Amino acid sequence: MSLLKGQSLIGQHWIDGTRQEIRAINPATGVMLDPPYKGCGEEDVERASELANSAFDSYRETSLEARATFLETIASEIEALGDVLIDRAMAESGLPRARLEGERGRTCGQLRLFASVVRSGEWLDVRIDPSLPDRQPLPRADLRQRHIAVGPVAVFGASNFPLAFSVAGGDTASALAAGCPVIVKAHSAHPGTSELVGQAVQNAVSQCQLPEGVFSLLFGSGREVGQALVANPAIQAVGFTGSRAGGMALLATAQSRAQPIPVYAEMSSINPVFVLPGALSARARVLGEGFVASLNMGAGQFCTNPGLVIAVKGSGLDAFIEAAGAAVSESCAQTMLTPGIHQAYENGISQLSDNAQEVARGKPGKEGYQCQTVLYTTPAIDFLRSKALQEEVFGAASLIIECNDEHEMQQVAKRLEGQLTATLQVDEEDMEVARTLLPVLEQKVGRILVNGWPTGVEVCHAMVHGGPFPATSDTRTTSVGSAAIHRFLRPVCYQDMPMALLPDALKDGNPLKIARLVDGKREHDNDNA
Amino acid sequence: MSLLKGQSLIGQHWIDGTRQEIRAINPATGVMLDPPYKGCGEEDVERASELANSAFDSYRETSLEARATFLETIASEIEALGDVLIDRAMAESGLPRARLEGERGRTCGQLRLFASVVRSGEWLDVRIDPSLPDRQPLPRADLRQRHIAVGPVAVFGASNFPLAFSVAGGDTASALAAGCPVIVKAHSAHPGTSELVGQAVQNAVSQCQLPEGVFSLLFGSGREVGQALVANPAIQAVGFTGSRAGGMALLATAQSRAQPIPVYAEMSSINPVFVLPGALSARARVLGEGFVASLNMGAGQFCTNPGLVIAVKGSGLDAFIEAAGAAVSESCAQTMLTPGIHQAYENGISQLSDNAQEVARGKPGKEGYQCQTVLYTTPAIDFLRSKALQEEVFGAASLIIECNDEHEMQQVAKRLEGQLTATLQVDEEDMEVARTLLPVLEQKVGRILVNGWPTGVEVCHAMVHGGPFPATSDTRTTSVGSAAIHRFLRPVCYQDMPMALLPDALKDGNPLKIARLVDGKREHDNDNA
Repeated sequence: MSLLKGQSLIGQHWIDGTRQEIRAINPATGVMLDPPYKGCGEEDVERASELANSAFDSYRETSLEARATFLETIASEIEALGDVLIDRAMAESGLPRARLEGERGRTCGQLRLFASVVRSGEWLDVRIDPSLPDRQPLPRADLRQRHIAVGPVAVFGASNFPLAFSVAGGDTASALAAGCPVIVKAHSAHPGTSELVGQAVQNAVSQCQLPEGVFSLLFGSGREVGQALVANPAIQAVGFTGSRAGGMALLATAQSRAQPIPVYAEMSSINPVFVLPGALSARARVLGEGFVASLNMGAGQFCTNPGLVIAVKGSGLDAFIEAAGAAVSESCAQTMLTPGIHQAYENGISQLSDNAQEVARGKPGKEGYQCQTVLYTTPAIDFLRSKALQEEVFGAASLIIECNDEHEMQQVAKRLEGQLTATLQVDEEDMEVARTLLPVLEQKVGRILVNGWPTGVEVCHAMVHGGPFPATSDTRTTSVGSAAIHRFLRPVCYQDMPMALLPDALKDGNPLKIARLVDGKREHDNDNA
Repeated sequence: MSLLKGQSLIGQHWIDGTRQEIRAINPATGVMLDPPYKGCGEEDVERASELANSAFDSYRETSLEARATFLETIASEIEALGDVLIDRAMAESGLPRARLEGERGRTCGQLRLFASVVRSGEWLDVRIDPSLPDRQPLPRADLRQRHIAVGPVAVFGASNFPLAFSVAGGDTASALAAGCPVIVKAHSAHPGTSELVGQAVQNAVSQCQLPEGVFSLLFGSGREVGQALVANPAIQAVGFTGSRAGGMALLATAQSRAQPIPVYAEMSSINPVFVLPGALSARARVLGEGFVASLNMGAGQFCTNPGLVIAVKGSGLDAFIEAAGAAVSESCAQTMLTPGIHQAYENGISQLSDNAQEVARGKPGKEGYQCQTVLYTTPAIDFLRSKALQEEVFGAASLIIECNDEHEMQQVAKRLEGQLTATLQVDEEDMEVARTLLPVLEQKVGRILVNGWPTGVEVCHAMVHGGPFPATSDTRTTSVGSAAIHRFLRPVCYQDMPMALLPDALKDGNPLKIARLVDGKREHDNDNA
């Protein structure tokens, strides 16, 4: 791996950290990987933040075309890394090649989607209320609104998607699209993967002749770098995907700043699946098997992993449990992302074993840090009484809640914490029950699926990967899909500003040819104001 | 004032509080006004919150037409109160009749604007990505997004706009438009005005046959009721206009809940006015007089009051100061809203007098709680060194910062805290200086005005009444204008949901005839999906 420097990246400069060393571990073998990455300190955070701040004014006013091209160049540079990237990501994450190749495709597709979003200019949310000089009793001024970037953004890479939710993942892509410089705190589980992607972004910055402060990449163990980043006055928003404890710590820091800033932390979710009676009686076995396939995806290390199944007791549920149990028993052990995640999983299932009844357990692991799929059941009454049973166990463990009737199912729904997703398995005859559950679920989750499984998050315009607390720290947004750009924008209004001073997006004649709301009516791409 | 009950309103029921009494004081005379209002306690907050929660599911799914009609009915009911409302508001606020009649017009116009916003359905931000069953390597599911109301909202009435930022003001109108039940904590400065407007909303709820929990109005002195409201688990967002200390206290409570919620607090702003050299040399006297007219509006008790003037030293600025000073000396004393606000103003100008040089002082007050206009100057170097000189003094006091050159003017701009507005007074020759200031100001404020004055906030689509902290607690939004509705909404995505379960906004055929984004392209009102 001679391509790797083991250094952090501040603008266009690779630097050595001065703090404790980070080393990736191959979770499949337990072997430590070279090179070591010395952790950054507050002084590095300060330099990267200053550089980001000095790049901000120029970067946020790049043309739509220039910014879109930059995002596309990052995608091409990532692809140009070829197998080196995939091999390193496999070694650092234990994830299989096909999965990582798919994730690379998703990551690059996401960058290109945001390029198209930038070009369309809808995100500027341009509103023009022309002056009404003769209005009585008072004239109206000329008022024009656009959205601008909030400022430099700190992004925290996630362990479970070393490409798609990491250095050039959704948070970075949407922040760059909005016009925000980005400083990434790399996840310590995959430093080499992070460095390679960091190189790709660095190359794109240079090729596109952007100010170097547009992107930096810092390594650091423990919380020093992350906390210093979020506390730095230059940073204006935070994107994070990880544990509830980690997200809450960053949120506390962000809120205690002299100037509080928004934190978009995606934290925890157990993604309830409601299997309704009609669906159970029509296809219990198929559902049981489909459920376990979803549960096992990526060793259960998906934010949208189905960690909870809710159904009414009876022969249908018995058949579901039997089929799911059989599928679990057949499940091969899978390598988890890190020794720490593996240990947390072991602790989590040990606690579930104390509080619920085990239905089946997958094949034991042979070596490294492998996750054994486990399925539990518990009566609804116990679930309703226990907060512990709602805690996310990150990995392929799930709990079936057996309800006495549909009323109890409704009670379980009402008791749920905020979630990324909820799933309904329904048949024709379940429509009435589904209709009573929907208003409850709409208040609990960001995405409701019918007759599917929650794993798999499409990158598109309508996606919501978000949801009420504690699924995320900010329920008003999504971290996946084109709407994610809005997290890093704020509105500015210009009153009676001479045409020569107005930004192009707001000028008469609509020089950018973007959709605008004129006097409350939508004007289309080719009209003139 | 026999129409007034002196009671709080929980749903359709008037109730007596059990806590300390509130009495309005006529600030023009110092006379206490009947009736007394007994303060509510936590038990009342609990009842109102439960009622709001139970109304939420039905209210948030009212048809666009039903909800718009409700907003219009509130406006009509407020108008139907006639002079009783204006007379009481005059007695409680010391504000003149014409101003309050204008404010009533604005309040009712605002409710009607939100009715039209609701009908248009743009706020639903509907996005549809149709399924792609044949896509390789994986098919795409059918994904549809709409925005839904966040839940019951707590609104805190402001002292300075007893109608437009109070019981049925912008926060309430936009929250109701979004589909959120509202619980208002009335401002203790104008309880009778609040009760009358509360009656109007109550009548509208009843006429429109909405669940009673859609609206409640609580009185309470001190912070007990407000803090209990923000802490109540049913409350999902907070709208507030008032002091920085008050807003920060609510923010702290909201953040320390088991489930943190957004707080939209509009807190403090000194609204800098940059008078550029060309403008000064062309029309210093006119500008000085115009500035003082803006400063004196509403006894200086506007959120957008021009509390800071920044200009480069010279004969132009001397002429400006001379004209402004003369206008200040001629300024009549004006009655302030409350004894407390008057006292805070006296303290504020006493502190300014210690730290800056007085230019002129208006005519002294004769009786009651009157505000004497005061104008100060200070060298930029002192302003740059002093945090105290940036503190808002609520009332008709303003400070002129004398800069040595345009570079120092730029430094002052960079040192500013977040503001609602910034104003540029420019002439043709000032364009280059303006261009260097604009990027700084865009990061500091929500609205930039050219050759106008910041007082006067148009209720329209392009308005931004918001800005970086500490102007507001959430820079991503506005509290005035149609975009204010977005504060109370969050996205929900529906995946592969049968047509029978989908909300109308997302159904094939676009039954609501609203604008939708289909596969990333904007579909217009009359098209079909």
